[in-house]
Amino acid sequence: MATNAPTRVKKLYNDLDDIVPESLAGLAEAHPDIVTVDTAQNLVLRAGGPKRGKVALISGGGSGHEPLHGGFVGAGMLDAAAAGHVFTSPVPDQMEAATRAVDGGAGVLHIVKNYTGDVLNFQLAAELVAGQIEVSTVVTNDDVAVQDSLYTAGRRGVGVTVLLEKIAGAHAEAGGSLSEVTATAIKVNAQGRSMGLALTSCVVPAAGTPTFDLGADEVEVGIGIHGEPGRRRERLAPVDDMAEWLVSPIVSDLGLSRGDKVLAFVNGMGGTPLIELYIAFHSVAKILGGQGIAIERSLVGNYITSLEMAGFSVTLLRLDDSLTGLWDAPVHTAALRWGV
Amino acid sequence: MATNAPTRVKKLYNDLDDIVPESLAGLAEAHPDIVTVDTAQNLVLRAGGPKRGKVALISGGGSGHEPLHGGFVGAGMLDAAAAGHVFTSPVPDQMEAATRAVDGGAGVLHIVKNYTGDVLNFQLAAELVAGQIEVSTVVTNDDVAVQDSLYTAGRRGVGVTVLLEKIAGAHAEAGGSLSEVTATAIKVNAQGRSMGLALTSCVVPAAGTPTFDLGADEVEVGIGIHGEPGRRRERLAPVDDMAEWLVSPIVSDLGLSRGDKVLAFVNGMGGTPLIELYIAFHSVAKILGGQGIAIERSLVGNYITSLEMAGFSVTLLRLDDSLTGLWDAPVHTAALRWGV
Repeated sequence: MATNAPTRVKKLYNDLDDIVPESLAGLAEAHPDIVTVDTAQNLVLRAGGPKRGKVALISGGGSGHEPLHGGFVGAGMLDAAAAGHVFTSPVPDQMEAATRAVDGGAGVLHIVKNYTGDVLNFQLAAELVAGQIEVSTVVTNDDVAVQDSLYTAGRRGVGVTVLLEKIAGAHAEAGGSLSEVTATAIKVNAQGRSMGLALTSCVVPAAGTPTFDLGADEVEVGIGIHGEPGRRRERLAPVDDMAEWLVSPIVSDLGLSRGDKVLAFVNGMGGTPLIELYIAFHSVAKILGGQGIAIERSLVGNYITSLEMAGFSVTLLRLDDSLTGLWDAPVHTAALRWGV
Repeated sequence: MATNAPTRVKKLYNDLDDIVPESLAGLAEAHPDIVTVDTAQNLVLRAGGPKRGKVALISGGGSGHEPLHGGFVGAGMLDAAAAGHVFTSPVPDQMEAATRAVDGGAGVLHIVKNYTGDVLNFQLAAELVAGQIEVSTVVTNDDVAVQDSLYTAGRRGVGVTVLLEKIAGAHAEAGGSLSEVTATAIKVNAQGRSMGLALTSCVVPAAGTPTFDLGADEVEVGIGIHGEPGRRRERLAPVDDMAEWLVSPIVSDLGLSRGDKVLAFVNGMGGTPLIELYIAFHSVAKILGGQGIAIERSLVGNYITSLEMAGFSVTLLRLDDSLTGLWDAPVHTAALRWGV
């Protein structure tokens, strides 16, 4: 081997170009009862094809956020997901193909995280099927960290996307019409907010080096899910303090107060182990408990990630009986499963 | 702050001494319907107390392997888990307390990973309740990497432990007697083998520095779950090759051949994101498919970890109808849930 031969990035892959299709192939091989995969177009499709008369939900975006979105395809959640290259939007043809593949005659909801490329490409896909398939779109923009960012006009779409896919998916499974399911999705986005922080950067495989540099005692507060900068850098601190940095802006922005009920979602960025995420959840529970805000439901784990970045985000969703019931409804995907 | 003040380790925690109890507290707060926690003794107990007439299953060991074991407490799996400090065996008093807490009159199965401290301390606990509670013990020793290791006489207990807790737990839930459930547990251990590799070390919080050094292009093959050395060091390679390094010794040791059916478990060591684990699963599926070995069931994710270590392990369990049926039975824990 020549001494100037390119170094392999220290990750589990064969060739850089095959990372996304091989990961999707593995998803389908591990869960043949839940999904099928089109590795030519990098689509994850619900096994068994479109459900006649059911509103179909599709989402998609850059890869590197797994299990989002492919791990959320299945009964009670998404009908399809379109995967782009790592941290890169899928192209409109992929969303168009996904839309056509899942249409069961009752319309298709596009769930789009607010990043310029995703928004534009989903919009183009909707135009490509206009007059043939009724498409409704909801754009998530729940990140309170920054108003505009490197990749967005307006707030970024992050953790609420997971909760929205579950809740709107349950409404569609229960027979909601396209306008009803869309209204539920809009409501979830309106009632949920998120913020995250990073302890380390991630390494995009094709780049081979960390996306940003962070000192041994520095934390990036308000990080985006692609390593884009946050609000500020802070000195490393006890997790109780770090949780406060995230929860306070969310509680304030949502206008939560004593007696309110929430779903509390503590999400790992990919490289933070569960032992730490549960410590962070304990911090969040103490903060909310001190303010008389009741955690009625919870989710803890790595669900919307940034490759192997270390850190966590907090998402709070204001609950009512309707949303709680839809959250509790059965779901059968690779990454979220209960009731079946 | 003095310039020689100790540096905080870059992890989510408050004080080093509180890592385990605060993580367990978070587990209980996130899943009050599934578990209660005794943070004085660091025990995770199935919510609703002992089930009269059901064989109870307990496990335990050092922390840092989450979700193992606390995340596997609940209906259809464990009745209790005892947590030691990070990578340190719990003391016999903890196992004794757990045994007394879960006894429903039908006996208690101790599930012990083969590490000298765990084996000794579970044995002492069993002696402490002798004559009062019938205890049976199964020691897992599924790691084909090394015969003896830094912390064991004989093979280490690793990934099979997860599968055993699920399958034996289902048998107990279905009304199996202590001897029947023990026989099932012994069978799972006998029919399962594992091997893992590390791309990076982990950092034990109290140590603050990596457990071992590994060059940028080096892989530790046959790693243990505490960062203890493996069989050999290799140059970083495509994941197809790395999967072969793990699958071949397992297939050979188990004597698997064309037509055999297995559960294939690709486990992350804590810091490897899901996008990579599914690529690794795809490699394993290709290797087994090429040998005519059928993957009947699968599990992919971070289930028995080494803090934030990057890498993966493969576990294969030879299936028959009985084991498959017990695997498919309902389970309701924080980390594994289906059918309920």
